[in-house]
Amino acid sequence: MKLNVKGLLIVLSGPSGVGKGTVRKALFNKKGHNLVYSISMTTRKPRKGEVDGEDYYFVSKAEFEKRIANDQFLEWTEFVGNYYGTPREKIETQLQEGHEVVLEIEVNGALQVRDKMPEAVFIFLVPPGKQALFDRLKLRGTENYAIIEERIAKAKEEFLLAYKYDYIVVNDDYDNAADRILAIIRAEHAKTERSIHQYIKMLGE
Amino acid sequence: MKLNVKGLLIVLSGPSGVGKGTVRKALFNKKGHNLVYSISMTTRKPRKGEVDGEDYYFVSKAEFEKRIANDQFLEWTEFVGNYYGTPREKIETQLQEGHEVVLEIEVNGALQVRDKMPEAVFIFLVPPGKQALFDRLKLRGTENYAIIEERIAKAKEEFLLAYKYDYIVVNDDYDNAADRILAIIRAEHAKTERSIHQYIKMLGE
Repeated sequence: MKLNVKGLLIVLSGPSGVGKGTVRKALFNKKGHNLVYSISMTTRKPRKGEVDGEDYYFVSKAEFEKRIANDQFLEWTEFVGNYYGTPREKIETQLQEGHEVVLEIEVNGALQVRDKMPEAVFIFLVPPGKQALFDRLKLRGTENYAIIEERIAKAKEEFLLAYKYDYIVVNDDYDNAADRILAIIRAEHAKTERSIHQYIKMLGE
Repeated sequence: MKLNVKGLLIVLSGPSGVGKGTVRKALFNKKGHNLVYSISMTTRKPRKGEVDGEDYYFVSKAEFEKRIANDQFLEWTEFVGNYYGTPREKIETQLQEGHEVVLEIEVNGALQVRDKMPEAVFIFLVPPGKQALFDRLKLRGTENYAIIEERIAKAKEEFLLAYKYDYIVVNDDYDNAADRILAIIRAEHAKTERSIHQYIKMLGE
């Protein structure tokens, strides 16, 4: 029996290359949860095989900018001439319905969400060691030394933002990391600040 | 991989009659944890079959009072002419060794612990409804209406102290409640405030 019946927004973030996508997939493969994945909105053209409302919501630049003006994003960014953002309304409906909504997102986006929805649960995924991450970044399909250096520099900067998160989860093994995230969701529901209102209501009955 | 290597003090409390003992037993029957149980100290005489250092540490009144004077208890109380208390030193050693130390304790004692060790994890166990608890209190081996009323009044007072705890766990089923507590322990280890120092140390290496 859960006292807090509203779902939680789970913001899964961490330095580039830490394996956010793999851990997110492992998380959704687990049983006995009520997770949904937040689909981003973008102005870039769909790639071959990408489905609107599944991979992304594909919209025009004008539509996206209208939504920015109406404060309809939890976070958004511009990257190589295209917009990317997290639509707010759908998430709020899903939370009200009792789903845990998972947002897999870069560090800067996560910190934007923190401002708009401080009650979300912020998880910072870290590698089991610096070297493990740097090795992974080097393997990401480039031989260009300058690009590798740039990625490592960016990861180092992101590393230092861990203190802004609620939890630090080590991705030593994606399955273990997913288990830790499920434990965090369970524990967060039991937090007094989230459950006391429902508890008081129960006492009154 | 756990970043926080020190154990946690888990204070399991809640209104009289909620089933703290049953949940604690279910918790210790679970696998894959590192829990130890904190043994209380008392000045009452051992009952038949009770073992010193197992059921309680049995000490003299003079010894107990010396320990009070030396601030050696996390909490203590006097009940029907005898002292009962939680010795501090042993717990601190066990925490340093990486054990999670479980304290099953009445509400007043728990709040004393909060003052001395605010970094402990405070869990308030509640029944799935008021009536369930009152039925249980009535069944506790007495026909005396006044005593039953007194117990219910005490439980009602204790109910209202839930807001002083970190977590509210519903004891709808002792096994589920124990699972929730294990999730809380796991999540607490991942909390940024507990793990960031170790994380920064790891980055330096």
